Amino acid sequence: MTAEIITIGDEILIGQIVDTNSAWMAAQLNKVGIAVKQITSISDEAKHIAQALDEAQSRADIILITGGLGPTKDDVTKFTLAQYFNMKLIRHEATLKHVEDFFAKLNRPMLEVNCKQADVPDGCTVVFNKYGTAPAMWFENNDKIIISMPGVPFEMMHIMEEEVIPKLLDRFNMQSIVHKVILTAGLGESFLAEQISDIEESLPDYIKLAYLPKLAQVRLRLSAYGYQKEALEKEVEHFANLIVERVKPYVVATEDITLEKAILNLMEQHGLTLSTAESCTGGYIAHLITQHPGSSAVYAGGGVTYSNALKQSVLGVNEQTLANYGAVSEQTVSEMAGGAVKHFNTDYAIAVSGIAGPDGGTPDKPVGTVWIAVANKNQVKAKHYLFSNKRQQNIERAATAALTLLFMFLKQELP
Amino acid sequence: MTAEIITIGDEILIGQIVDTNSAWMAAQLNKVGIAVKQITSISDEAKHIAQALDEAQSRADIILITGGLGPTKDDVTKFTLAQYFNMKLIRHEATLKHVEDFFAKLNRPMLEVNCKQADVPDGCTVVFNKYGTAPAMWFENNDKIIISMPGVPFEMMHIMEEEVIPKLLDRFNMQSIVHKVILTAGLGESFLAEQISDIEESLPDYIKLAYLPKLAQVRLRLSAYGYQKEALEKEVEHFANLIVERVKPYVVATEDITLEKAILNLMEQHGLTLSTAESCTGGYIAHLITQHPGSSAVYAGGGVTYSNALKQSVLGVNEQTLANYGAVSEQTVSEMAGGAVKHFNTDYAIAVSGIAGPDGGTPDKPVGTVWIAVANKNQVKAKHYLFSNKRQQNIERAATAALTLLFMFLKQELP
Repeated sequence: MTAEIITIGDEILIGQIVDTNSAWMAAQLNKVGIAVKQITSISDEAKHIAQALDEAQSRADIILITGGLGPTKDDVTKFTLAQYFNMKLIRHEATLKHVEDFFAKLNRPMLEVNCKQADVPDGCTVVFNKYGTAPAMWFENNDKIIISMPGVPFEMMHIMEEEVIPKLLDRFNMQSIVHKVILTAGLGESFLAEQISDIEESLPDYIKLAYLPKLAQVRLRLSAYGYQKEALEKEVEHFANLIVERVKPYVVATEDITLEKAILNLMEQHGLTLSTAESCTGGYIAHLITQHPGSSAVYAGGGVTYSNALKQSVLGVNEQTLANYGAVSEQTVSEMAGGAVKHFNTDYAIAVSGIAGPDGGTPDKPVGTVWIAVANKNQVKAKHYLFSNKRQQNIERAATAALTLLFMFLKQELP
Repeated sequence: MTAEIITIGDEILIGQIVDTNSAWMAAQLNKVGIAVKQITSISDEAKHIAQALDEAQSRADIILITGGLGPTKDDVTKFTLAQYFNMKLIRHEATLKHVEDFFAKLNRPMLEVNCKQADVPDGCTVVFNKYGTAPAMWFENNDKIIISMPGVPFEMMHIMEEEVIPKLLDRFNMQSIVHKVILTAGLGESFLAEQISDIEESLPDYIKLAYLPKLAQVRLRLSAYGYQKEALEKEVEHFANLIVERVKPYVVATEDITLEKAILNLMEQHGLTLSTAESCTGGYIAHLITQHPGSSAVYAGGGVTYSNALKQSVLGVNEQTLANYGAVSEQTVSEMAGGAVKHFNTDYAIAVSGIAGPDGGTPDKPVGTVWIAVANKNQVKAKHYLFSNKRQQNIERAATAALTLLFMFLKQELP
C-alpha cells in the first residue's frame, strides 16, 4: 500500500514556513505499513493541483492533501477538487451545525464566509474536523483514495489520528514495513560504513540500510518490506544486533530516539538529575530536553544566562574569572557547569558559552568558538569547539556537542 | 524564471526528518526573483529520480536537487544523473585534492570510498563544496539547468550562497517577485478578511493576497509579479498601507519578521530589557528570542524552572504560594514573572507555567492548562489558557501566547 502527500500553499514555496506536516504524516503512515512514495508541495493554483493529482494517482494508492481549505480567497483546494471530480458543492448540514457551535462557543459573530466552510463536493464523504471549521473530505476515484485535509497542523493531526488512519486500517490488509534504527555518535559516516561493509553486503534485497548523518551523529536505519511482519522483525533484529556488536563504542541507542532522549532514559534508570547552564545556545538545550514527556523526572531546570550579570548571580561564576578570561573560556564554562550542579542541586550539569554570531567575534575567538563543560559533584570536564559562521548552525551544533559530551561522560561514570 | 526543488532521501518520506532545506532554498531563490513552482521529496531510487526530473523539466527552468551524494551505498543520485544524461563518471582531480586535504586536516585516514566522492559525470560542471567532500554538479539540458547538491544543510547553504545563486544571477535577466508581509495578532483569519475585503477586491490580477494563520497570529502576504521591480514595490506598498490603516490595532509588524523579533525591535528602540521564567515551555521562549542576532541587547536571560525547588531558589516564588495554589496557578505564575524582573534585574519579564502533557492533568487542571504572566517593575498581568492535549503544540502555543501577551502589554505601556 503506497501513499503520496500533496501540500498546497504558496507559503511553503516561497520559504516562509517549513513543511512540518508532511514528516509527521509520513511517520504516522509508516507506522501502519503505508509507504510514502513522494511528498509534493505546490501553490494554490487549480491547474497545478489537478496535475499533481494526476501524477500522484499514477504512482500511489492513497493521496493525502493538506492546505488550501481556509475561508479566504487564496484557498482554492475545495473548488478545484469539486471540478476535478466533476461534482457540485452542496451545504453539509452537520458541518454547518458544527461551525455554528464553534463560533457560539468562542462567542464570536459568524460571517457568510464561515457558513461556506460547510459546503462540500456532493460526491465526497465528509470527515469530521473537531478542532476547526473546514471539514476533511474523502474521495474515491476508481481504486484510488484521495483525502483532503486542512493544513493547520493540530487540526490535521487530530483528523489523521482519529479519522483517517483508523478508516484506512479498516479498509486494507496492508504490507508491512519494519524499521530499526541505531543511533551512533563520534564516528563519521564513511568509517561506520567501512566497519560494517560485510554486514551490509550480506543483507537480502528486501532489507535496506541507510546512513543518516546529522551534526556529530549518524543514524543507521534498517528497513524491511514484506507481508510476514514477525519474520521481518526477527530478521531485522538479527542484522541490527550484528551492527551494534561491531560498532558498540559509538552506539547511543538502538531505537529511533534522539540523543537527549537516550540521555534522559539512561539518567532516569540510574536515578540521576540534570540541569543546564546556557549562554550561546540560549535555552535550546533545555528545549530539546523538555520536549520529551516525563523529562521532569530527570531535568530540574536551568539558567539561560545570556548576560554576564546572570552568569554571576544565577550560577555563581566569579567576577574575576569573567574579567580575566572572558565569558567564552574554559574557566568560565567550567564555573558555569559547577555552579549549575551546586545552585540547581542536581547530580549533573551541562554548560555552554560561545560566540554564535554573526557579530561578537575577535581574532582570538572568532564566531563559532564554543566552550562546553560537563560536571558532576566530583569533577568538571571542558572542551573547546570551533563551528561555523552561521548563528542557527552554531546553536544546533553546540547543543548536539554538549549532549554528546554529556553522554560520553555518563558512559564513563556509570557502571 | 521558475525553479523546482527535488529532495532525495528516504528519511524525509518515512518522517524521520523534517525537510528544512527546501524552505531555506525557496526563500533564497525568491529573493533573487526565481519563483519555486514545486518542491518534491522522493526516495533514493533511480527510476523515481528520473521520473521526477522529467516532470520538473516540463514545468520549470531550473531544477535544484539535494541529497543522495554521500559515500554510502544508499546514495544513488550521482550514478542516476550520469545515466540520465548519458555521461560516464570520471575522477575530478581538483575535487580529489580537496577531499585529500579535507581528511588530512581532520587527521583522519582516507578510504577508497572517500576518493570516489571525487568522481563526477563527465559532462557536468563541478561546483566546489568548501565544507564537505561531495561536490555539487551543474548540468545543462537543452534550455534547462539541473544542479545537484549535497543534502547536509550547511554544505548546501554555503554552495547556494557562494556558488549557485551568483552563477544564476550572472546568467539570467529575471522577472521580479515583490513580497510584503504584515504580521497581525489577536484577530481571526476570516474577520481580518471581512475587514479588508474591499481592498482585496481592488487588487490588480498580478498582485495576490494570502492569509497565513499560525496559532494566534495571521500573516498577510502581498505578492506581485512582473518586470518593473520599482513600480511593483510602490504598488505593493500602497496596498499594504491601506491594509495596515484598516486593521491597525492588530498589526505587530509590517515586515516579514517573527513576533519575538518585533518585540526585540520595539524594546531595543525604547532601551528596555527582558527576562524569561519558563516552566512548561522549558526554554522554548528563550530559544525563540536568542535565535535572533543581537538579541543580547534586550534579553538578559532567564530561568527554566522546571522543578518547584528552582521556582523558589531561582525566582523567589513563595513556598506557601506553591503549597496553596499549585505550580500552575495565577498566583505562582505572577510571582514567577515578578521574581524574574527582580532577580534578573530587567524591565520586563514573561513567565509561563502549565501542564504540557501527556501526563500530569487533573479534572481541575487538565492537560493543556497554562497560566502566563507579564510583569514590569510596577505591575503583573496574568492570563489563563486552555490548549490541546498534545505536548509539542502546548509548548508552541504557550510560547506564542506569552509573546502576544507581552507585545500587547508593551503597546499599552509605551508611548
